[in-house]
Amino acid sequence: MSNKIKSIQWNEQGLVPVIVQDSRTLQVLMLAWMNAASLQRTLDSRETWFWSRSRQELWHKGATSGNVQKVIQIRQDCDSDALLVLVDPAGPACHTGEISCFFRQIGAE
Amino acid sequence: MSNKIKSIQWNEQGLVPVIVQDSRTLQVLMLAWMNAASLQRTLDSRETWFWSRSRQELWHKGATSGNVQKVIQIRQDCDSDALLVLVDPAGPACHTGEISCFFRQIGAE
Repeated sequence: MSNKIKSIQWNEQGLVPVIVQDSRTLQVLMLAWMNAASLQRTLDSRETWFWSRSRQELWHKGATSGNVQKVIQIRQDCDSDALLVLVDPAGPACHTGEISCFFRQIGAE
Repeated sequence: MSNKIKSIQWNEQGLVPVIVQDSRTLQVLMLAWMNAASLQRTLDSRETWFWSRSRQELWHKGATSGNVQKVIQIRQDCDSDALLVLVDPAGPACHTGEISCFFRQIGAE
């Protein structure tokens, strides 16, 4: 495991929240979670891998849909407990078919 | 409490992760956490309020620094367990003085 990964402040479940942003449009696509293993796979493969909290397993984004996310850059925040991954997505990030999972506005009324 | 807030899937600590993005530049500024009370204050005041996990208290972003964040839009993701807040920031988001908390790149070597 690289020193880069060791510096991250994982939460009590060994996870860190990961913001995924389109590197070209800058649209925020999704928020997912990584553990150390998924971050290592992401670094090695240059495609996003997450930890699925519902299925409790490693999850290669796009493995089923084909909508993989090529990693352009990974950034960590000032206290190392959140990551921002800039990607080049092969298709919509959301399982609903929307480009971004954040397609619903609240508090608008 | 509005129905909009009730629909959110709070975690076991009653919190939800919140991505803060500059509405003009689209730069991702920070990731913080809200509980229902901080979201309600955010909706009411149209400035960001968070829950400080380290201090265990409501936190009006910019109360000390003056760098408040005017709320332009609030979005929730497809499974309602993450929020995206588009803001007009009065100054840097990070306590280090950086515009964004995500100023460190990892895995670049």
